[in-house]
Order: sequence, then C-alpha cells, then structure tokens
Amino acid sequence: SRPFTLIAGPCQIESEAHAVEMASALHELCRDLGIGLIYKSSFDKANRTSLNSQRGIGMAKGLEILARIRETFGCPVLTDVHGPEQCRPTAEAVDVLQIPAFLCRQTDLLLAAGETGAAINVKKGQFLAPWDMANVAAKIASTGNERVMLCERGTSFGYNTLINDMRGLPIMAQTGYPVVYDATHSVQQPGGLGGASGGQREFVPALARAALAIGVAAVFIETHQEPDKAPSDGPTMVPLHEMRALLTRLKAFDALSKQTS
Amino acid sequence: SRPFTLIAGPCQIESEAHAVEMASALHELCRDLGIGLIYKSSFDKANRTSLNSQRGIGMAKGLEILARIRETFGCPVLTDVHGPEQCRPTAEAVDVLQIPAFLCRQTDLLLAAGETGAAINVKKGQFLAPWDMANVAAKIASTGNERVMLCERGTSFGYNTLINDMRGLPIMAQTGYPVVYDATHSVQQPGGLGGASGGQREFVPALARAALAIGVAAVFIETHQEPDKAPSDGPTMVPLHEMRALLTRLKAFDALSKQTS
Amino acid sequence: SRPFTLIAGPCQIESEAHAVEMASALHELCRDLGIGLIYKSSFDKANRTSLNSQRGIGMAKGLEILARIRETFGCPVLTDVHGPEQCRPTAEAVDVLQIPAFLCRQTDLLLAAGETGAAINVKKGQFLAPWDMANVAAKIASTGNERVMLCERGTSFGYNTLINDMRGLPIMAQTGYPVVYDATHSVQQPGGLGGASGGQREFVPALARAALAIGVAAVFIETHQEPDKAPSDGPTMVPLHEMRALLTRLKAFDALSKQTS
Amino acid sequence: SRPFTLIAGPCQIESEAHAVEMASALHELCRDLGIGLIYKSSFDKANRTSLNSQRGIGMAKGLEILARIRETFGCPVLTDVHGPEQCRPTAEAVDVLQIPAFLCRQTDLLLAAGETGAAINVKKGQFLAPWDMANVAAKIASTGNERVMLCERGTSFGYNTLINDMRGLPIMAQTGYPVVYDATHSVQQPGGLGGASGGQREFVPALARAALAIGVAAVFIETHQEPDKAPSDGPTMVPLHEMRALLTRLKAFDALSKQTS
Repeated sequence: SRPFTLIAGPCQIESEAHAVEMASALHELCRDLGIGLIYKSSFDKANRTSLNSQRGIGMAKGLEILARIRETFGCPVLTDVHGPEQCRPTAEAVDVLQIPAFLCRQTDLLLAAGETGAAINVKKGQFLAPWDMANVAAKIASTGNERVMLCERGTSFGYNTLINDMRGLPIMAQTGYPVVYDATHSVQQPGGLGGASGGQREFVPALARAALAIGVAAVFIETHQEPDKAPSDGPTMVPLHEMRALLTRLKAFDALSKQTS
Repeated sequence: SRPFTLIAGPCQIESEAHAVEMASALHELCRDLGIGLIYKSSFDKANRTSLNSQRGIGMAKGLEILARIRETFGCPVLTDVHGPEQCRPTAEAVDVLQIPAFLCRQTDLLLAAGETGAAINVKKGQFLAPWDMANVAAKIASTGNERVMLCERGTSFGYNTLINDMRGLPIMAQTGYPVVYDATHSVQQPGGLGGASGGQREFVPALARAALAIGVAAVFIETHQEPDKAPSDGPTMVPLHEMRALLTRLKAFDALSKQTS
Repeated sequence: SRPFTLIAGPCQIESEAHAVEMASALHELCRDLGIGLIYKSSFDKANRTSLNSQRGIGMAKGLEILARIRETFGCPVLTDVHGPEQCRPTAEAVDVLQIPAFLCRQTDLLLAAGETGAAINVKKGQFLAPWDMANVAAKIASTGNERVMLCERGTSFGYNTLINDMRGLPIMAQTGYPVVYDATHSVQQPGGLGGASGGQREFVPALARAALAIGVAAVFIETHQEPDKAPSDGPTMVPLHEMRALLTRLKAFDALSKQTS
Repeated sequence: SRPFTLIAGPCQIESEAHAVEMASALHELCRDLGIGLIYKSSFDKANRTSLNSQRGIGMAKGLEILARIRETFGCPVLTDVHGPEQCRPTAEAVDVLQIPAFLCRQTDLLLAAGETGAAINVKKGQFLAPWDMANVAAKIASTGNERVMLCERGTSFGYNTLINDMRGLPIMAQTGYPVVYDATHSVQQPGGLGGASGGQREFVPALARAALAIGVAAVFIETHQEPDKAPSDGPTMVPLHEMRALLTRLKAFDALSKQTS
C-alpha cells in the first residue's frame, strides 16, 4: 500500500548537463510528493521508424551519465537494452534493465537480462495478449531472477494506432509480478507521421488516472522541458512544468485505489 | 459537479414482480448513496446471437411495467427501441430512449427518437470511431432535441472480443453531450459462446473505476439478483448484492475526479 | 461449376432513365461474357454517415423502377430492406432481398425477409466473425426459406478501416450456403472523410481476383458511368467503362478456380 | 513474367540427413514444375512462445548443413538472423538473409544484413502497416544493397490471431521491391495454444492462391514430411506429400495472373 512509483525522464540521454537538469527536477518533485522515482533515459534508439532519426549518445557515454545520476541523486536508474551483450555492462551502471516491446519474445535477451540479477521491466509487445506475458516472465524467472515488472504500452489496433486494453492490467497482475503502465508510449501513433511516429500527449493524464484507478505498481511517463524540440518521442512527452500538477492528481487516485481495495 | 448518474437494472423485464423488486432495491441503494438512478430494462432483445434465445416480454406489457416503476419510485426509466414506430409509444412510458449500438447509424430511428423530445442515450456502434459519434448526435439534434447522451460500450477488436478505447470518453465529450460508460456490454464477448455471447463480469468494477477516473456523466451497469439464471446477459451482469460496495467505491472515484479537475 | 454470378449496378436508383441505361449496359456485358447478372440498386440509403447525405428515390418509386428493369431485361433484381415492414412489398418487385451489414443481427428483419420466400443476401456485420454467420442464416432458415446467401463486405480493423479476412470465405461456405464477395464495400473507409465514407476503388480488381481464386459463388461490384458524380459510394464504385476488362479477367480466375478444385 | 519462386523447407534444421531429404524432395518437385526454389530452414528459433520449446541445432552446425544443401542441389538457400553479429557468417553460407517480423525495425540488424550484400527477405512486423515497410527497406538500401524482398506474414488482429490484408501486397509492391507471401506464418495463431502457437494449415492453399491471383514474386510455404511431429510450426506446415498438387495449382494461378495483367 505504498504510493505508486514514477518511472520518468526524457526519452533520450541528450547530454550530461541535460540529464542532470532533468533528474534534479524530477528528484525534487518526487521528494516533495513522497513518490518513489526511477529515472529513465535511453542511450540508443535502436528501432526508429526512419534511418534519418537520431539514434542517441551511445552506450559507453550513456551508461557513464546514468551512473552519475544514480550517484548524485541516490535514485534508481532504468535504461533499455537491445542485445544480450549489452545486459552485463548496463546492469553495472543502472538498477533496472528494460526490454523493448518489439524484443519481448527474444529468448536470449530475456535470459541475458535475467542473469544480471538486475530488476527487469519488460514491455508487452504490441502484438501480444496480456496473458501471453506469463510466458515472457517465465523466461526471465528461469534464470532465478524474480525481479520482473510487466509493462503495458499499447496494443496494435488497425494501422498506425495503439489502444490500451485496461483489462490487461489485472490480467498481467495475476502473474504476481508488479505491473507498470506506460502512459507515454500508449499514446504513440506508430509511423503516424510517415517517416516518424506521432502521438497524443493530451491523453496521458486521463489514461494514467484510469490505470491508477484500476491499480498499478508504477506509472511510466516521459517528460522534457521542451518536448517539441526533443530528438525523439516529442509528440508523446509531457512538458516538465506540467508534471507537478499531474503527479499530485495521480497520487490522489493511487491513494484512493489502495485505500478502498 | 454533481455525482455521476447510475443507469441500472436487469437486462430484460422478466415480470412485473421482478421489475419492482429490482427497482426497489436499486432505488433504496441510490438514495442511501446520494446517486441519481435511471432504471433500465428491455422489453425485447431484438438482436440475440441465436434465434433460440429468449426475446422478452413484449412492448405493450413491458412499457406498462416501466411506467409503473416510474410512478412507484419516482425515478426516470430507460428502455431501448428497435424501429421508428416504437419511439412515440415508448416515449410516453419512459424518460430515456436508448438506441442500440448496431442501430446507431439508422437515420430514421434516430430522427423518430429525437422527435419525441425524450432524452436519447445512443450507444456507439462497435464498428465506429468515437469521433464518428458527432455525426450520429447531429442527426438527433437536427430534430431540435439536444437531450442526447453518447454511450461507450466497446469496440470490435478481432473476433468475438470487444475493447474499450478509454480515449474515446474525452473524445466523445468534445461534442458537448454527456458521456455514459456502459461497463456491462463492454465486457461482453460477442458470440463468444457459439450460440450466445459470453462475458467477463469480473472486470466491471475495474473498468467502471477507470471511466470515472477519466470522467463520465453516467455509468451503466446491468444487475440481477441471480445473473447466472437471467434470460440474457448473465455473464456480464453484476450480482445485486455486490452493487452497494461497488457503487460506494465508484462514488469515491467520481468525487475525486470532479474535485481535482 | 457454372461461372460466378455478378451482382452489380449503381449504389442508388437515381432515376428510371439512369437505371435503365445502367441495366442495359450490364445486361449486354454479362450476356457477351456468359456471366449471370443480378441487377442491384438501392431505393433508400438508410444509414448514411451524415444527415446531409442524399437518402434516395424512396421505396414506392424505387420498386417500380426495379420491377421495370426485371421485366425489360429478364434478369433478377436485388435491393436492400431496412425494416420488417419493407420485406413483403419489396419481395413483390425484386428477386433478392438484401440485409444490410449493420442489421444482420435484427431477428425480426431476418424473419420477415425469410418469410417472403425470396432469396436473401445477408451481409456479414463488420463486427461479426465469419463463423457467427451460421446463427444469422439459421434465423432465416427457421422460416423454411433456405435461399440464403452470405456476403463478405469487410470487418472492422481499428478505426475508419475495413479489412477482409479471406479465410472467412471458406468458413462461411461451410454452412452450405453460397458465399458472395462484395468488392465494393470491402474497400470502403467508413467515416474516413469525416462527414462521409471514403474508399479505395483501386483495390477492387485485386481483391475480387483473390476472392474468386479462393472460390465464391458471386461477386458484388457497384458501378457507375461517372462514380465521382454519384450521390453515394463514389469512392468505391468502378467506372462502367472498366467493367468489361475487369469481368473478363475475373471470369478467367473463376474458371481456373473451378477447374482445378 | 517468369513463374513465382517457391521459398520452402522445414521450419527448423533438424539434422543433416533430414535437411538433405527435404531439400532433395523439394528440388525434384520444383524442377518438375519449372518453379524456382529457395530452400529455407532455421538454425535457431530465437523467439519461441515458451522457454520449454526447442531452440534449434545452432548456428555453426546449421550453416554447415545449409552450405551443403546449396552445394549439393545448386539452389539458393535462405535462413533467418537474429543479431547483427550473425549476418556476416550467415551470408557466407547462404544466399538470402531473412529478418524476422519482430525484428524488422531493429536498425543495426537491417544495416548489418544489408552490408553483407546478400539478398534480404524482411518480414513485415505484425504491428506494422504495409506502407511502413518503405522505411524498413530504406534502412537496408542505405547500405547500397538493393536486393530486398518484402514479405507479408500477417498482421495483429485482436488477440492470438493474425489476419492478411491482401491490399498490403500491391501497397508493398509500390516500393519497387519484390513481394513475398508467407502462407505459413499467416495462418499462425500466436500464443493460441497457451504455451505455444497454434495454426490453421487448412487455409494455406486458399490464401496462397489469393496472393498469386493478386500477384506476388514468391510464395513462402514451410513443409515437413510429418508436420505434427515437427519441433516447431507443426500446426502451420503443409505435409510434404501434398506439395505437388498444391504447387501445380498455384502455378496455374500465377500464370493466369501474369498473362492477363
């Protein structure tokens, strides 16, 4: 019955200065609100719609920055991995390894992530039913690592559109693993801009309230001080200056959800 | 900022005695909780999966019973209509005409319903996008009747499955008309039992909480003292004895949703 | 092993002169190709996206024109019905009653249509699985009328989009009833133009070939001498002057399909 | 206007003896029918539903066997790769590298595959629209390698179900790259058996005919002498003894498709 955890940060690690600035703001905000923070940022955007989109700062530099954030602010840090060989070095710098949705069935990646002993946040593939995630979790758990989180981030619905089946949250929770609601990628419109993905950031607050009313362990929200200038996920990120009001409200729904259940 | 309205009752009018018993229980419950009640029940199940399923008590007898309920308990009453010729007589007995989802594009039915001057609850077709409901509402409004409610009850998702796109609630609200969330039919599995529709009543509370956390004017929940013995919609109806706890909790989410918005 | 039947005509009955002109051209074309023709046209567009769209010539005038076509060209005629009361008079003027997709679960309409003894072409609802059509056919057959055709016209796929599951053709054929492939409405984009439905007429030939390669009894193709000026379904109708080449090619696929099976 | 190419073989490389036996039978069959053959088999099933499913013979042994097949029968050989580091060694043993559907957006894999200069068969992700494959092809083409094939293998449709949008074949062909229709994985029911994927092999012939009637460069059909005993994809593979009749019929549709277009 503790409050939900916030997984937040800018989509990409843009620079050390930017990462520190964002982490500082989120750290202060979560401390004020009494919410746990896991700082999230990516060192490589490995599956962009188009080759012309920006990839990221790279693994070596990125992990160095994330380790700095962890040390400076004392908060756990999360980043995503794209191949088995990235798992071990990444787990030395961060607390939570994230498995991208497209890769959630790649057995070797799941096993390599599990074997690090780090916590693992697996995104549900857009092509998977919520009950199929039990098989995904079992692959990780086979390594003896039970620190698994299952994350809803939208399901394919026709073309260039994702939809959240909110029944999926309690269905995934039946595995016994904590469930994360990714409000950012759930409002993505994959390929919706032709050479890039579009998004509907205006629905992030409503969907996050819905997920907390149903009951989740954590909410994932990407944020940026100027989303429209961000190198990726701009259309889905919440402006940093809106986060305090959003989180305050989400905390109230979370508290009510836990109080009455 | 008044509390949400509950639209509730057993799927079918089974008998006058049964209707009075159900209405009495719901009336007392809503009075205790300070929630407005619109009593719902159908006189004809006009589009059952199979011909062998029970149709209903018929229009003449059904309307007589509904008028009795309205008079006895002083609460508004809702029932569905299936053809233009049913609108006028039905509007004399009840307060709200409901347009079934399959029929939400039938222009003559919408116009006839609108012309009665009664309030109209239109279910969004399982085949429609939420933004398409603006055209549906405009057909009714063309009669000069602006007492329109737009109701989400699930969208086709593959075969024998419905899904709620919770973004549809704020999208439909942009029309300016009140939005209703039908938690009962949203958990229907159409044709899921071969010769009948299945359902997942266990998800009604979670989905209703989600809808209220987002913000809706009314929630639609069918109920029965023994759902598994009901002549229709058994798998999706909430047992009557669970309604008090469910509504108490929903009221808290509704209040929070309105307080903080 | 006879050739497939063509169900064709302009979406709406625009005038007697127009109907005669279209029927004459299609009659000559099908006679030349040795293909059976069922002339199709509607007297009322009862479920347009928007109220502002043109409804049609009306039942009385429309049936008179269709009866004239039947008499003049000696070919069977098909039109759609929207309520039980339309079935008897319509069956006096035409050979095939068509049940619109949105209405394919309306029990009274199916029974009234069946009771006329006319052939019935039922469109599969966009919200139905192909196997659910067995229940629909059984409603009609309960009247003793076994002259049923089951018609594929697309299934809901996300928003404003239809998709054909080609497996549905053999699945519906397992009922023993002839299967019709509606190439026109399968390429509709429902509500895709905001206040009207869009369409992709460019895919009609490819999809019709695919259906015939799999094996169907009839193909439904709306046509018009100037589709872009038609009062409805313009984006999905095939220009009349392209029909000869299209049908010639379809006939070859149909013959091959029947020869080798 | 040459006949279509057949991409065929057993899902997994089970042993050298088995591979040679299958390749021999397919080679003879295609020679008899005058159809080009690309022999397909996998050395690793890297994304099985469940960890308990069999993975495969491994890369070293598998590539050795595939190279043997190529040498023995003089036919091109295809296998799938799962990480950038596998591309170079695999391209030394086989003619066509295949990118699995789940991995079709992984930029590094696409670039590494492209850089080998080998032909690349990219499966369309179950979560992608056909028009999104232009961006995928462009990633490969950026390496200077234009030997790209785009492969339809089904799109997510609700849960545990795939559907083919046959419009996707001409849409992908607009890129100018040859289009492959994978009839085997298109009838897969992902996760449909709980711990494994189900399938509907009975629809392979009808769907392959449909694809050829529309027009494709190649058809992909997995086959096995005893599919129900195969270590993977049993429910979707066609029994080897049915392949001659199936291909004979497909060849006729292909010829007709090319003749009349």
